[in-house]
Amino acid sequence: MKSEKSVVKIYKMKVAKTIESVRRLVKNARNAGEKIGFVPTMGALHTGHISLIETAKKKCDFVVISIFVNPTQFGPGEDFSRYPRPINAEVNICKKTDVDLVFVPAVRKMYPTENLTWVTVEKLTEPLCGRSRPGHFRGVTTVCAKLFNIVAPDVAYFGQKDAQQAIVIKRMVADLNMPLRIVVCPTVREPNGLAVSSRNQYLTERQKKDAANIYQSLQTCRNLIEAGTTDTRQIIAEMQKILQRIPSVEIEYISIVDAETLESIEKISGKVIAAVAVRIGTTRLIDNILVDAGT
Amino acid sequence: MKSEKSVVKIYKMKVAKTIESVRRLVKNARNAGEKIGFVPTMGALHTGHISLIETAKKKCDFVVISIFVNPTQFGPGEDFSRYPRPINAEVNICKKTDVDLVFVPAVRKMYPTENLTWVTVEKLTEPLCGRSRPGHFRGVTTVCAKLFNIVAPDVAYFGQKDAQQAIVIKRMVADLNMPLRIVVCPTVREPNGLAVSSRNQYLTERQKKDAANIYQSLQTCRNLIEAGTTDTRQIIAEMQKILQRIPSVEIEYISIVDAETLESIEKISGKVIAAVAVRIGTTRLIDNILVDAGT
Repeated sequence: MKSEKSVVKIYKMKVAKTIESVRRLVKNARNAGEKIGFVPTMGALHTGHISLIETAKKKCDFVVISIFVNPTQFGPGEDFSRYPRPINAEVNICKKTDVDLVFVPAVRKMYPTENLTWVTVEKLTEPLCGRSRPGHFRGVTTVCAKLFNIVAPDVAYFGQKDAQQAIVIKRMVADLNMPLRIVVCPTVREPNGLAVSSRNQYLTERQKKDAANIYQSLQTCRNLIEAGTTDTRQIIAEMQKILQRIPSVEIEYISIVDAETLESIEKISGKVIAAVAVRIGTTRLIDNILVDAGT
Repeated sequence: MKSEKSVVKIYKMKVAKTIESVRRLVKNARNAGEKIGFVPTMGALHTGHISLIETAKKKCDFVVISIFVNPTQFGPGEDFSRYPRPINAEVNICKKTDVDLVFVPAVRKMYPTENLTWVTVEKLTEPLCGRSRPGHFRGVTTVCAKLFNIVAPDVAYFGQKDAQQAIVIKRMVADLNMPLRIVVCPTVREPNGLAVSSRNQYLTERQKKDAANIYQSLQTCRNLIEAGTTDTRQIIAEMQKILQRIPSVEIEYISIVDAETLESIEKISGKVIAAVAVRIGTTRLIDNILVDAGT
């Protein structure tokens, strides 16, 4: 039986708070022959998310977005409690982007008992952000496995900005034979090059200007590779110079890795990812570019 | 396009060797409104498996059985290489039990690349067999997650004989919101009480007689509980006496645990599992009973 409180109609868009109602609504759409697209988010929706939704709307008949700030992917001392949760504004954004279904579960719906089951991806989660955020990717893969099982989409959309996350999720889907396809969409940037992120809300105007240097360092990397530089140490040194110009920027890592294995490389060849993580004040920012250097 | 080699018709039963063909055949059944039952096995089919299949046939419209000796659940030095694989006999058994679809993937189809993704269940996998078979349950949960994603059943059937496995799988399904139900069926026994197992094939007639003492020890446990004994140490001592009578039996563990958490208990109350693991010669055998002692 349909519970009146578990589904709220807003124009054509529906907002579901329970797993059962999401399953029922998606099943109806699937039975009507519709292709299901899914954009998992932690809310704090920005133009990056909107571009994922727009891509999903173009390619699918029925688009589901989840808004769930997942506690299991935050480490102790990370920003779980201060992570922005402007839920009414979010629902309005979804309405404007013509989303069909918004899933906004409470934490107790997603984790009704102590969670004992974890999905982990080895190797790919070790470098880059894996080093400074132990347990983070385990939380991401576990909650994505749960959401994929609940929503049962044909396609799920992720942003290139979280390159390592996208690669890890893709590998999980392949290794566990999950019946969906992962599509990775380009990073959306502010006019000054700063990658759009929910955590940009934490930045002052001054810090946002400083943060633009992250993308500058990545562009320098691309230019050097395109000019034929193959020594990653030399490239990283140039990137470091750019970031060190800004006193407020504390570098966590600058890495150039194989785009498939995420292993560090000494000599540029094939597809590589240049990735940067910094802290500006108390805010951690990441960005990356994919460069195909040929063989 | 249907590949002629990937699906072999045997009367009404089909044998699929590829993931794609299983998915297609199950999808056809589902589109026809059929309820899908699934019995995952490692082959070496015996009356225990047949009872699972018969239960599935009663409750479901379309029954899939997988036969896959999963390398990732065997530890180094365990019996992966000598595990029985009488594949033609198996297919005949399936035909007789009116299975609709047999899935017999090669290892390279299930693990086409290095497997980096693992599903693990904490706590429940630590006691009992978890202690002596590190990595075993991780292999079981991972391959079951894969098979559930490939077959997409409504219900999957497991035997009570592997009590810990059934509890671990149930917890995985609940924690990861997998869209299926797990049904646990009673242990099937030889006339002398020995739990039917693929590994009984390794036993000589003499060893089979010796192995009957495992169930005798479990029955003694049940009798003691029903007579009001609540001290688990006392019960375990009695069970130990029975097993120690037989020189060929080497006890790995005798445990009495809470039937839900699998934690050891000192005083019997509520639902408990009495579980035994022994070695007879080089063969490892397990068995258990569920006893409801009331509160």
